Amino acid sequence: SVTAAEPEFAKDIADKAAWVRDHAADDNKSMAIVESLTTEVGPRMAGTEADARAVIWAQNKFKALGFDKVWLEPVTFPTWKRGVEVAEIVSPFPQPLVITALGNSIPTSEQGLSAEIVQFASLDDLKAAKPEQVNGKIVFINRKMTAHRDGRDYGPTVSARGDGPVEAAKLGAVGLLIRSVGTHNHRMPHTGNSRYKEGVTKIPAAALSAPDADLLVNMLARGNPVTVKMTLGSQPGPMYTSHNVIGEITGSELPNEYVLIGGHLDSWDLGTGAVDDGAGCAVTMAAAEFLARHKLPLKRSIRVVLFANEEQGLWGGNQYRDRHAKSVKNIIAAAEADFGQGPVYMLSSRVKPEALPLVKQMQQIMAPLGIEAGDNNASNGPDLIAMRNEGMALFSLHLDGTDYFDLHHTADDTFDKIEAKRLNQTAAAYATFTFLAANAPMSFGSGESYLVEKAKAERNK
Amino acid sequence: SVTAAEPEFAKDIADKAAWVRDHAADDNKSMAIVESLTTEVGPRMAGTEADARAVIWAQNKFKALGFDKVWLEPVTFPTWKRGVEVAEIVSPFPQPLVITALGNSIPTSEQGLSAEIVQFASLDDLKAAKPEQVNGKIVFINRKMTAHRDGRDYGPTVSARGDGPVEAAKLGAVGLLIRSVGTHNHRMPHTGNSRYKEGVTKIPAAALSAPDADLLVNMLARGNPVTVKMTLGSQPGPMYTSHNVIGEITGSELPNEYVLIGGHLDSWDLGTGAVDDGAGCAVTMAAAEFLARHKLPLKRSIRVVLFANEEQGLWGGNQYRDRHAKSVKNIIAAAEADFGQGPVYMLSSRVKPEALPLVKQMQQIMAPLGIEAGDNNASNGPDLIAMRNEGMALFSLHLDGTDYFDLHHTADDTFDKIEAKRLNQTAAAYATFTFLAANAPMSFGSGESYLVEKAKAERNK
Ligand SMILES: [Zn+2]
Ligand SMILES: [Zn+2]
Ligand SMILES: [Zn+2]
Ligand SMILES: [Zn+2]
Repeated sequence: SVTAAEPEFAKDIADKAAWVRDHAADDNKSMAIVESLTTEVGPRMAGTEADARAVIWAQNKFKALGFDKVWLEPVTFPTWKRGVEVAEIVSPFPQPLVITALGNSIPTSEQGLSAEIVQFASLDDLKAAKPEQVNGKIVFINRKMTAHRDGRDYGPTVSARGDGPVEAAKLGAVGLLIRSVGTHNHRMPHTGNSRYKEGVTKIPAAALSAPDADLLVNMLARGNPVTVKMTLGSQPGPMYTSHNVIGEITGSELPNEYVLIGGHLDSWDLGTGAVDDGAGCAVTMAAAEFLARHKLPLKRSIRVVLFANEEQGLWGGNQYRDRHAKSVKNIIAAAEADFGQGPVYMLSSRVKPEALPLVKQMQQIMAPLGIEAGDNNASNGPDLIAMRNEGMALFSLHLDGTDYFDLHHTADDTFDKIEAKRLNQTAAAYATFTFLAANAPMSFGSGESYLVEKAKAERNK
Repeated sequence: SVTAAEPEFAKDIADKAAWVRDHAADDNKSMAIVESLTTEVGPRMAGTEADARAVIWAQNKFKALGFDKVWLEPVTFPTWKRGVEVAEIVSPFPQPLVITALGNSIPTSEQGLSAEIVQFASLDDLKAAKPEQVNGKIVFINRKMTAHRDGRDYGPTVSARGDGPVEAAKLGAVGLLIRSVGTHNHRMPHTGNSRYKEGVTKIPAAALSAPDADLLVNMLARGNPVTVKMTLGSQPGPMYTSHNVIGEITGSELPNEYVLIGGHLDSWDLGTGAVDDGAGCAVTMAAAEFLARHKLPLKRSIRVVLFANEEQGLWGGNQYRDRHAKSVKNIIAAAEADFGQGPVYMLSSRVKPEALPLVKQMQQIMAPLGIEAGDNNASNGPDLIAMRNEGMALFSLHLDGTDYFDLHHTADDTFDKIEAKRLNQTAAAYATFTFLAANAPMSFGSGESYLVEKAKAERNK
């Protein structure tokens, strides 16, 4: 029958996967790893002295956790340094504002930049403005982000951060202030990367905390011009070479094939990078370690990649692609954890159609963790984008991001926010997924025409 | 009969009080006042340029609200200025710490102060320490505060802030870091006043945010010495004269007698002083304005006092006493709102026993607002302490402080945290209380022997 031809996991593997699922959540290893990273390294912005210490920490941690191979792959990128960042309302009612520079922002002059504020509700509203509304002013974009499990309001909000500097400058603005891309009301601004464009004047750009944005709105509502002074000392620095730090547990039958899991090792500088992305590093390291420690059979290798400099432009993921694109077929499946501590609520895939029965079986095995079945359009993992474009098979273990943007890119991204129950469930989900993928009876389609063409079609959209 | 001799409010007054109770809560006036103060003045630390602007704002607001008399009474005090405030862990794992100087702290040297940390769970544990444990070190007191409606854990926690610098210095410490006196886990330190003592070396003192305190605890748990460097630029300044700003609505029968309500006009500098104590100023101004606007009969005057410099040592309250102690009998009753936005959950009193039937009637009238009856030992209102010691009758409209210490003395004390429903209930409670007290059929005992002796007995305890 047709059914008989469908691929499936061996009974022994499925049984062992259920055991992993039921036992890996009781392991506090991932908590210990995040605690170690946030305490012993702390903030580790790409290109800083702490970046180098994080690389050493990661190597030592992989070794201590018993990984068979640990190595570094260089990743080179331009650096950016934060400096002084202060702002104040100059008139009509002087008071300080709490801001943080957007990543990549140029500095203001040392004396600071003073200009009238012009408010827009969104990047689209700014784009629709006339130059005479904006010319010589500081643009203030007040897009409020709402909280959702899947973080779906991040994209529409973060566009003001990424493209705001260029769009504002095109209309003659002298600076940009955005309402922080976040979902809480604490006086804690969110940093994050922004971009300039060749041929468009670079203007200094910063984020206001939510209460400061509300204050500006209230002051502007009185109908009189509001003048703000902002002073940023941030600036670009020299090129730097950091490393993707890689730990591998060697598979027994097909050691050159591997499941690729991981997170990014760098963080922003304001917090200690606990949820972004200490959690992602920790759950994937702990998942692999759990499988090795319990001597579970692994047909293929497990490769945990802690990517360098995700935050400032996906440098680690892109250079992983530069180095490994030719052997994309060796990657049986990939999954990156970079959306906080979890729990995982859905498993979706991006595999060739013939492998979908395997995905269904994986979803059934993982269901008792509270994980639903997703579709076959998984696109998760910023550091996997480059390899996804090469036709890599991937899975998304969807992390519950309801409170992720309360912490993300702020000073509040610290270890005390991590809840053991949530992190342990995520680690268990990763362990189960990784175990099954490593023992899959067939390819999920990495590098084969279906996934290569799918990626091509998406890029051309 | 005995019952017939008991004092009671006239039927007409009791009926009108019920009307006030039921209508004043629908009035958004107090919200508008806090919005105005936080937007048009913002932070207004005593002795700063913004203190002077707050005084002008308050005078203008009283006039705009239709108060019959508005005047200033000078209050003179020494000033203190915040400066740079940074800290970092130097070893074994370098990373920045988020701190804020305690009010009154001396500066460190410009190069900063580096020393090993010694941790104590509480001020009492510090007091029990031996000099050799502390000498040459920075004391770190990690007392965690718990949240309660009545804020009862504030006293036991805040002692480390007030007395920590002296107790640590007595044992040879070179600096003090306390876990912030607060009930949240955001990376936002709490400032607040601290004291030095003649004959004991002054040492620099600051508060760590809760996540930073947790980080230090985790690092210290590894068993190796932890060295911290802190740099404070805070310092004392010259004497300054601010003002208690007073607005009065004139009573018809006994205009020289008055109900004293109010809050403190100054705030700390980190937030905009919304819950501490914009809320208290606003609800008392709004309560009096409501009674005047609706032309409710007022036998006695209503005096709203916005006290100067509560935060740095009760200067406004003490100098109000210096000026008005002799006429304490004119104050029919007093109540200060300085515990956040409410709601009010209890009415307690401090009156002569003969007046207790009136208090009971006030409690009955206010009960539908969700207000329970308290005892006769009310001691609320920091700016009323001095006059309380002179035998002033007072009431406490107990404010629900469950979340007050999430915001109090932090950058997060901003207008967006105020909920209209809570503030309106508080304003309604104040309006009802004030109306009844202004129309009381007899004295509550201000300046009479019962309250004078009670205060004396308490001071001698
Ligand atoms: Zn991330
Ligand atoms: Zn990030
Ligand atoms: Zn206060
Ligand atoms: Zn206060």
